[in-house]
Amino acid sequence: MRRRSKGQGRLILVSAMTPTPAGEGKTTTSIGLAQGLARLGLKSCIALREPSLGPIFGMKGGATGGGYSQLLPAEDINLHFTGDLHAITSAHNLLAAAIDNHIYWGNRSGLDPRTVRFHRVLDMNDRALRNIIIGLGGRTQGVPRESGFDITAASEVMAILALTEGREDLKERLSRIFVGLTYDGDQVTAGSMGVSGAMGVLLKHAIRPNLVQTLEGVPAFVHAGPFANIAHGCNSIIATKMAVGLADWAITEAGFGFDLGAEKFFDIKCRHGGLDPAIVVLVATCRALKMHGGKKKKDLDPPDPDAVERGLPNLEKHLENIGKFGLPAVVCVNRFPSDTPEELEVVTRRCGQLGVPASVGEGFLRGGAGMTDLAEKVVASATASDAHFKPLYDWSWPVEKKIQTVAKEIYGAEFVDFSPQARKDLATIRKFDYCSLPVCIAKTQNSLSDNPELLGRPKDFVVTVREIQIAAGAGFVIPITGEILRMPGLPAEPAALRMDIDRMGNITW
Amino acid sequence: MRRRSKGQGRLILVSAMTPTPAGEGKTTTSIGLAQGLARLGLKSCIALREPSLGPIFGMKGGATGGGYSQLLPAEDINLHFTGDLHAITSAHNLLAAAIDNHIYWGNRSGLDPRTVRFHRVLDMNDRALRNIIIGLGGRTQGVPRESGFDITAASEVMAILALTEGREDLKERLSRIFVGLTYDGDQVTAGSMGVSGAMGVLLKHAIRPNLVQTLEGVPAFVHAGPFANIAHGCNSIIATKMAVGLADWAITEAGFGFDLGAEKFFDIKCRHGGLDPAIVVLVATCRALKMHGGKKKKDLDPPDPDAVERGLPNLEKHLENIGKFGLPAVVCVNRFPSDTPEELEVVTRRCGQLGVPASVGEGFLRGGAGMTDLAEKVVASATASDAHFKPLYDWSWPVEKKIQTVAKEIYGAEFVDFSPQARKDLATIRKFDYCSLPVCIAKTQNSLSDNPELLGRPKDFVVTVREIQIAAGAGFVIPITGEILRMPGLPAEPAALRMDIDRMGNITW
Amino acid sequence: MRRRSKGQGRLILVSAMTPTPAGEGKTTTSIGLAQGLARLGLKSCIALREPSLGPIFGMKGGATGGGYSQLLPAEDINLHFTGDLHAITSAHNLLAAAIDNHIYWGNRSGLDPRTVRFHRVLDMNDRALRNIIIGLGGRTQGVPRESGFDITAASEVMAILALTEGREDLKERLSRIFVGLTYDGDQVTAGSMGVSGAMGVLLKHAIRPNLVQTLEGVPAFVHAGPFANIAHGCNSIIATKMAVGLADWAITEAGFGFDLGAEKFFDIKCRHGGLDPAIVVLVATCRALKMHGGKKKKDLDPPDPDAVERGLPNLEKHLENIGKFGLPAVVCVNRFPSDTPEELEVVTRRCGQLGVPASVGEGFLRGGAGMTDLAEKVVASATASDAHFKPLYDWSWPVEKKIQTVAKEIYGAEFVDFSPQARKDLATIRKFDYCSLPVCIAKTQNSLSDNPELLGRPKDFVVTVREIQIAAGAGFVIPITGEILRMPGLPAEPAALRMDIDRMGNITW
Amino acid sequence: MRRRSKGQGRLILVSAMTPTPAGEGKTTTSIGLAQGLARLGLKSCIALREPSLGPIFGMKGGATGGGYSQLLPAEDINLHFTGDLHAITSAHNLLAAAIDNHIYWGNRSGLDPRTVRFHRVLDMNDRALRNIIIGLGGRTQGVPRESGFDITAASEVMAILALTEGREDLKERLSRIFVGLTYDGDQVTAGSMGVSGAMGVLLKHAIRPNLVQTLEGVPAFVHAGPFANIAHGCNSIIATKMAVGLADWAITEAGFGFDLGAEKFFDIKCRHGGLDPAIVVLVATCRALKMHGGKKKKDLDPPDPDAVERGLPNLEKHLENIGKFGLPAVVCVNRFPSDTPEELEVVTRRCGQLGVPASVGEGFLRGGAGMTDLAEKVVASATASDAHFKPLYDWSWPVEKKIQTVAKEIYGAEFVDFSPQARKDLATIRKFDYCSLPVCIAKTQNSLSDNPELLGRPKDFVVTVREIQIAAGAGFVIPITGEILRMPGLPAEPAALRMDIDRMGNITW
Repeated sequence: MRRRSKGQGRLILVSAMTPTPAGEGKTTTSIGLAQGLARLGLKSCIALREPSLGPIFGMKGGATGGGYSQLLPAEDINLHFTGDLHAITSAHNLLAAAIDNHIYWGNRSGLDPRTVRFHRVLDMNDRALRNIIIGLGGRTQGVPRESGFDITAASEVMAILALTEGREDLKERLSRIFVGLTYDGDQVTAGSMGVSGAMGVLLKHAIRPNLVQTLEGVPAFVHAGPFANIAHGCNSIIATKMAVGLADWAITEAGFGFDLGAEKFFDIKCRHGGLDPAIVVLVATCRALKMHGGKKKKDLDPPDPDAVERGLPNLEKHLENIGKFGLPAVVCVNRFPSDTPEELEVVTRRCGQLGVPASVGEGFLRGGAGMTDLAEKVVASATASDAHFKPLYDWSWPVEKKIQTVAKEIYGAEFVDFSPQARKDLATIRKFDYCSLPVCIAKTQNSLSDNPELLGRPKDFVVTVREIQIAAGAGFVIPITGEILRMPGLPAEPAALRMDIDRMGNITW
Repeated sequence: MRRRSKGQGRLILVSAMTPTPAGEGKTTTSIGLAQGLARLGLKSCIALREPSLGPIFGMKGGATGGGYSQLLPAEDINLHFTGDLHAITSAHNLLAAAIDNHIYWGNRSGLDPRTVRFHRVLDMNDRALRNIIIGLGGRTQGVPRESGFDITAASEVMAILALTEGREDLKERLSRIFVGLTYDGDQVTAGSMGVSGAMGVLLKHAIRPNLVQTLEGVPAFVHAGPFANIAHGCNSIIATKMAVGLADWAITEAGFGFDLGAEKFFDIKCRHGGLDPAIVVLVATCRALKMHGGKKKKDLDPPDPDAVERGLPNLEKHLENIGKFGLPAVVCVNRFPSDTPEELEVVTRRCGQLGVPASVGEGFLRGGAGMTDLAEKVVASATASDAHFKPLYDWSWPVEKKIQTVAKEIYGAEFVDFSPQARKDLATIRKFDYCSLPVCIAKTQNSLSDNPELLGRPKDFVVTVREIQIAAGAGFVIPITGEILRMPGLPAEPAALRMDIDRMGNITW
Repeated sequence: MRRRSKGQGRLILVSAMTPTPAGEGKTTTSIGLAQGLARLGLKSCIALREPSLGPIFGMKGGATGGGYSQLLPAEDINLHFTGDLHAITSAHNLLAAAIDNHIYWGNRSGLDPRTVRFHRVLDMNDRALRNIIIGLGGRTQGVPRESGFDITAASEVMAILALTEGREDLKERLSRIFVGLTYDGDQVTAGSMGVSGAMGVLLKHAIRPNLVQTLEGVPAFVHAGPFANIAHGCNSIIATKMAVGLADWAITEAGFGFDLGAEKFFDIKCRHGGLDPAIVVLVATCRALKMHGGKKKKDLDPPDPDAVERGLPNLEKHLENIGKFGLPAVVCVNRFPSDTPEELEVVTRRCGQLGVPASVGEGFLRGGAGMTDLAEKVVASATASDAHFKPLYDWSWPVEKKIQTVAKEIYGAEFVDFSPQARKDLATIRKFDYCSLPVCIAKTQNSLSDNPELLGRPKDFVVTVREIQIAAGAGFVIPITGEILRMPGLPAEPAALRMDIDRMGNITW
Repeated sequence: MRRRSKGQGRLILVSAMTPTPAGEGKTTTSIGLAQGLARLGLKSCIALREPSLGPIFGMKGGATGGGYSQLLPAEDINLHFTGDLHAITSAHNLLAAAIDNHIYWGNRSGLDPRTVRFHRVLDMNDRALRNIIIGLGGRTQGVPRESGFDITAASEVMAILALTEGREDLKERLSRIFVGLTYDGDQVTAGSMGVSGAMGVLLKHAIRPNLVQTLEGVPAFVHAGPFANIAHGCNSIIATKMAVGLADWAITEAGFGFDLGAEKFFDIKCRHGGLDPAIVVLVATCRALKMHGGKKKKDLDPPDPDAVERGLPNLEKHLENIGKFGLPAVVCVNRFPSDTPEELEVVTRRCGQLGVPASVGEGFLRGGAGMTDLAEKVVASATASDAHFKPLYDWSWPVEKKIQTVAKEIYGAEFVDFSPQARKDLATIRKFDYCSLPVCIAKTQNSLSDNPELLGRPKDFVVTVREIQIAAGAGFVIPITGEILRMPGLPAEPAALRMDIDRMGNITW
C-alpha cells in the first residue's frame, strides 16, 4: 500500500465516459459515494464546482446532484449562490474595460487593439455576444475593434481563482494575464493596466470556499466553476486541499468525459496544486452506452442490450486512458429507471473481463444506502493499490508535442492539424517563452474527437487546432479545436421557458 | 398641521443643488439627519439606494455616506453587497439573450431586429460597450444587429424592482417591457419571449429589501439603485414604505440635483407608490456654490465668499422648484473643512432673506451630534406646515407637454426641440397608447440644462430630445436629452487604479 | 443694356420650381431653348451635366432630354458615356484606399481614423453602403473603422472636376481635400497621402469636356455631373466657359429647384469661375403646381385649375428668389399632354400679374419649333435688361451667417438649428480657417424646406444642420440638413427591372 | 501532323514558371513571339487580357508588354481603356445592390442574408474593403450583414464575360449566378432579382473585343481581365476565337505560373470554348530561377549560375505539368540585362537534357527581331507534333476528386485538407447539383503550393481548402486555398506615389 502525506486523506476523482447531452450523473455519484463512505463509518468530504447560470437557464436544470444524493440548499446553490461567479464576472470585465479605456485615453503602451483576445464574460448562454464589434459611435465613444463575450465559466479569472493558493498569488496571476501585442511586437500583460489590486478587491469573498452539506449531512465544499470543454473543468485547489486535509476520503469531480475534465485535472490541477489522486471512479450509464452503440438520442429509453454492447468501446477507451495516469479505476454504472438487468449485466460482465471492479450505483433513488457497494469497492481498490499517479506529459515539452500527445494518446487521433492562426500563436508562445505551460484543450464534450458527430470510439480522425490562446495568469495555453465555442447559445426551447416563481417565492423549474 | 395615514411616519426627501463631480453629501446628510433625529429621541429610519460598482471603480469611492455618518458594513455594501445588482443584471440579460435567441430560431413573431432598443447591461463603466454590433460570425452565430450595453443602474429591470409592490406585480411588469416592432408594425413585449417567470426566479432574493444600520445604530434599508441622470434615481418603493411604516421619521434620498432625482421622486415614485412626502431637505455646499459662481473645479478650496454669492442663483432655482411641488424646504449646508465662516454666512443669510430655514450640517465630522440643529428645524417645519404635496404635471397630458413642462418649469428651458427620431418615437408612443405614462428624462447632472457646460442658473437655452424610449414595464417613457449616455465611461485615471487588497483581505481604496 | 466681355456670349441659366419626383423637364427645356434660338438664326450652345447611372437604374430613365429636344446619342450618353464618372470614381477611391493604407502601414501622420469622413463612392444607388464598418478581419486585414459610400455625383472629386480650371489647379485642389484630424488635433489633407498626381493621371481624359449635339444639330458640352441636393449641382466651369466663348447664347442648367441648384450656381460656380449670367429661365409645370396645390402624386393627370392656382405660391417664391440675385426671369411652362388650356392660363395669367414674361414650351413634342416664343422672350428680356448679377452673400461672412442667409432668404426658414456635431464642425472650420468658403447646403429636393413633406411655400419651419463637412478641395463646406443622405437607395421596383438588351444589342428601357 | 478545323489557326499558349513579384515577361514574350512570327512571314494575331487598375496603382506598372514588344497605345490601354472593367464593376454592383434592395423591401424570397457570399467589386487594391459590415444605421438604412469587396478581376461577371459566347448566353449566365440560400435551405439565383437584363445593358459595349496593335503592327485583341490566382486568368473566349479565326498563329496568355493560369486555361476555358491549343511556350528567367534557388528577392541581379541551377526543379515541375495536358513545350528564357551567358547556358543546357527546345528571347530589347529563333522553334515543334490536347480531369468527377487531382498532379501536394466550411460548401454543391462544374482554384501565385513561402519545387505539403464558392454563372466552383484573398492590398509604398501628370497631360509612371 502506498504512503500518503501525514494527515492527508485519499483523493478520489469521479469522471465519466463520453456523456449524453443530459449528463451521466457524475455529481449525483460523487455525492452518493461520499454518503456511501459515511455509511461505512468513514470520514468523507466532497469538493465540487459551483453551478453556472448559463446551462441552468439553457439546457438543463441545476448542478447539485439529484434525488437522494443532493447538496442543500440546492435552489440557492444553483441561483447566484454566494455570488462568486458574479464577482468573477465583475473582476474579469473590469480588466476588459480597463484595456479599452487604456486604448481610448491615448494608448500609451502602443497596444495593437487587433491583437487583444481577452474577451468580456457573462454568466449567460448568449450566442449573439460571441462575435461583436465594440467601441463604435465616433471619437468620444471608443476605438472600434472586433471582440466578443465568453461565458464566465471560461473566464481566465475563473481559472485563476480555481488554481490559486491565496490572495498574493491571485493578484500576481491576475497581473500576468496576457493582453496582446504592441505595434512593435512586444507583449502587454494585465499588470500594466493597473487594476490587479482592484480585481483582487472584487474577489475578496470569492476566493473563500463555500461550505454546504449533502442531504445526509456530508460536508461539501462548492468553489469555482470552470467548464471542462472550454476551460479546465475542476473546482478550486483551495477547496480540494481543504477536503483532503479535513477527511480521510475526499471526493472531487472533473467535468464531462474523462478525456476532457480528468485529463486536465491530472495534467493541470494536480500538478499546479501538488495533489496526489488515489483512484478514479468512472461513471457509465446504459443510456450513454446505447447512444454510442448507435441509438438516436430520443430512443435511449427502450431496452436494447445489443446497443449497450456496441457502445462499450467508448467506455473501454476511457478505462485505457485512466491507466495512462497510473491509477486504479472503479466503474460506477449510474442506474436509471429505464435500465434493465440484462443491460446492466452487459456492462458489469465486460468490466469483469477487463479486471475492473464495477458497481451499479443507486445514489439517486436510495442515497448513501444505494452506494455502499461502490464505496466498498473504491476503498478496497484504493487501499490495495500501490499505483502512483503520473502525468501524461512533461510540461517542458514543446507545446505542439503536448497537444499531439493528448490528442493521440487520450482522444485517439491520427494527426493534429494546426491552422495558420494556430501556427502564428505557436510562434507568439515561443517568442514570449510560454512554452513550458501545460495545454488546456478546448474540445467538444460530445465525442472523444473534436467532431461532435463521431460517437463510440472514433479512429483515424484529424484534430484541427484553430487557434491557441495564452492564459498566462491561469498558467496554461488553450488550444481551441474543431468548432468549439467559448460562449454557448440557448436552444430553441431553453429551460428558462419552464421556470416560474409564485408570490410566496416558491420556484418551479 | 396636516393629517397623515394612521401609523405612518413622515417622509423626508433629501435632495441637493446642482452638484460638483464629487457630490455634495446627500447620503452623509441623510444618515446624519436620521442620527440627529434619533438624538432628539425621535424614531427614525433611512431608505437608501444600493451602490453601483461602476462609479465606485470609476470616479469616486463608495456610496454609504462618510465620516461619522456612515452605513455599516460600508465595504461590503459597496462591494457586491447582497448581490442584488448582479441578480438584476442576470435577469435583464436573460431577456436580452432570449430576444436574440428568438430571432435566431426562426423569429416567429416577425420582430424587426432593427427596432429593438432593449440593450444588455453590466454593472461597470465601460465606454466601449455603448455602441456595438452583435450576432456576427455567420449563419450559426446569430443575426447581426446594432445594439449596446447600458449600466445596470439604467436597466429597466432595476426600475421595475424599485417601483414594484410584490412578486406578481414584478412579473407582470417584466412581461410588459417593450421590446420592439414587428415588420408589420405591431409591438412585441417581453411577455412573448416567455422568460418573465425565469427573470422572477433570478430576482427571488433581490426583491427583498436589505436592512443595515448606521454607525450610531439607526436602521437603514438599502434597496435598488437606479441613477438619477439616466434613470429615475430613487430607492425602492417597498423599502421606502417599510421605513415609513416602521418609524415616525423616514428619510430617503433622490439622486443628483433636485431637477433630476427629486422631480422623478415626486412625479414617478410617489405617484406610482402612493407616497406622501412631507418636506424636502436641500443640500448645498460652499464648494458647489463657488463652482456655479465661476470658479474652476480645481480651485474650489481657497475661500472666496464672492464666488459663493455668485453661485446662489443655482440654489435659489432649486428652492423655487421645491415650491412647485407644494412642500416646505430646509437647506442643509454640508460643511467641508475648507469652508470659512464668511462663506457659510453668505448662504445662511440668503436663505434667511428667502424665508427658508437653513442649518450648517456637520454629520461627517460629528455624526448625529452635528445634525441636531438641522433635525430640529426639519421637525419644526414639517409639523408646522399644512402644505400638501402636489405633482408637477398630470399623467394624462400628452407626452410632449409633460416633457415641455418639466423642461421649462424645472430646468428653466426656453424651448424643447424634438429630433426626427424623437418625433418617430412620439408617434410610436401614441400608436401603442403609452401616452399616459410619466416622463423620466435622461439629462446631464452637471447643469440645470441639458448642456453640462452651462453652470449657475442657465436661461434661454433649448433642451434637445434625441430619442424617447418606452419603459412600459417600469411605467414611464425616457426622453433622452443632449448628449447624455446611459453607459458611463472610465476616466483617464479611474479609481480602480488606487485600490488594493492585502493577503489578509484588508482593502485600501 | 449691360456690357459683356468681348467675344463672350450671354449665359442663360435654366432652373425650375420645386419638382415632382419625375422632374419638370429642365434638360428638355434647355435643349429646346437652344434649338429655338437656333431657329431664330442665333448662335447657341449648351453646357449640361453628365448623367449618373444611379438614378438611371433607380428612379427614372436617362438625363438627355426627351422627345424632339434630346441629345444624341442618348443611349450612350446615359450608359457610361466617355467613362468620366468611372474615372472620377476611381480617382476618389484611390485616395480613400491610400488613406486606409496609410493607417494600416503605421499611420505615421497620427491620423485619428474616427475623424475621417472622406467616404468611398460608387455610381450606384446602394442604400446598404451608406453606413458600413471597414477594415475587419484582424491584424493583416486593416484597421476597423466606421465609414460609408456616397454616390459618385456627391464625390468631392466630382465637384473639383466641375470647378477646376485646368490640370495644375486640379492637382492642387485634390491635394487640399480635407481628410481628418490627428490625435493631436492637427488637420491632415490629401496631399500628405501622396496620390494627387496619380489621381490626376486617372482623370487625364475626364478633365476634357465631351462634345455632342442635339437632334437639331446644336452643339452641346456634357461634362461633370454633381447632384444639386447633395452636391453643387452644376456642370463644369471649363465646359460652360467653352460654351460662352463659342456661341452668342450659352444655355446651362442647375439641378432640381432654384433653391438648390441655382443658388449654388450663383454663389459657388459663378463666383469660382468668374461667370456672368444674364437671365434665368424658370421651368414650371401644371403637374408640379397641382402637387404643391395639394394633389397626390398619383392624381396629377386629371385637370384641376384650382389646384394649379393653389400651387402658385411655390412658383412665386422661386421668382422672388431670382430677384435676390439681381437677374431678370422668364417662366417656361413645360407642356405635358395632360395639361388643359385653363390650367396653362392660370400660370401665364399670374406671371403677367407679376410682370414676368411667360411662355408655354413645347420642346418635347415639337423641338425648336415649339420653343421660338420662349427664345424670343428670353432674348428680349436679356437684351433689354441692365440688371447685374449679384451673389446672395459675401464669402467673408461667418459660416453660420451664410447658412442662415440661404436658409432664411431662399428657403424661407424661420430659424436654423445646429446639432452638437454641427457645432463641433463649425469649431473645426474656424480652427483651420475654412471660414471664408461658400456653403453648399445638402437638402431635400422635394421641398423648399429640409422636410420633404412640406409642399407649396412652407413657412415658420426650422432648418436643422446635422453636420458640416469640409470640402476644401472643391472650395466649399457642406452643411447637411434634415435627413438628406448622400447615397440614394433603390425603390422597391427599380427602373433596372424593366431594362433589357437583345442579342443584337438593342436596348429597351 | 494533327488536323485542325478548316480555316482555323494554331493556338499557342504562353505561360511561365513560378514568377517573381515583378513577373517574368509573359506579355512581352507573347507580343515578341507574335512579332517574330510576323518577321518569318507568318500571319499572327494576339489575344490578351485587359489590365486592372488595382495592380497598376499598387505593385507594378502596366500590363501591355515592354520595350520593343508592346501594345499601343500603352498608356490608354492601362488607364480605363475602353471602360470594360468599369462596365463590369457597374453590372456586378448593380446585382449586389439589387440583392440588398430585395432584402430591404420585404425579402419576399426568404433569402438568408448570412448566406450571401456575392461580394461587391472595385477595380482597386483596397485592403480595408475585404471584410466589412453593411446596411447599418437603422430601419431605413438597410439590413446589417457581413460582406466585402473583391477586386473586379475576381468578379464572377468578369469570368462570365470572358467565357460567354454572346449576349443571350451572357444574360443566361448572369441569371444563373448563385446568390445564397433561403431560410428554408433552397437556393436563390440572380435571375430572381430581375436585373440580368439591366446588367446586359451595362455590358452592351464591354462584350465586344477591343482591337489594338503591337509596336510592329501585329493585331491584338485585348478583352476581359480575370486574375489567375483568384479567378481563371484568361482573356475572353470571343477574342481568342476571333484570333484563331483570323490568323494562322494565334498567341494567347494565361496568368501567373503554369499551375494557375494554364491549368485553368486548359480545364476551364478550352473546354468551355471548345478550343484546341497546339503548343505551350513556357517563359523562364534567370532571376526567377535564382529566387527559387534560394536568393533573396533583392539579390537577384548579381550573377550566380549555381543559384540558377538550384532553381531548375521549379521549371522542371512546370514542364512535367505541360506533358500532363498532352502538349509539346518550348522554353523561352526571357533575357534581362543582368543575365550572364553562363546563367543562360545553365537553363538551355538542362532543357536540352530534357529534350525541350529552348530559346533566349530578346523581345524587350529587339522586338520581333529578337524572337525569330523562338518563333522558328515553336513553329517546328507545333507542326512536327501529333500530340493532342487532353484535359487533366473529367468534369463529371466529384468536386473533391477534381481538387485533389489538380493539387496532387499539378501542385505536387501530398494531401488536401477541407475545412469545416469547405465541407459544408461541398454539401451545398451536391445538394444543388453543381458537382459537374470544373474547379477554379484560388491559390497564391508565389509558390506551387498554397503557402507563398515555399519556393522551388515544394513536396510533402498539405493544401488547405478554406471554402468553396459557387460561380454557377461562370460555370465553375472556386475552392479557396491557404490564405489567398480575393481583394489585394496596397503595399507600404504603392506605385501610385510615383505617378504624375503635367499640365499638358503627359504622364510619368
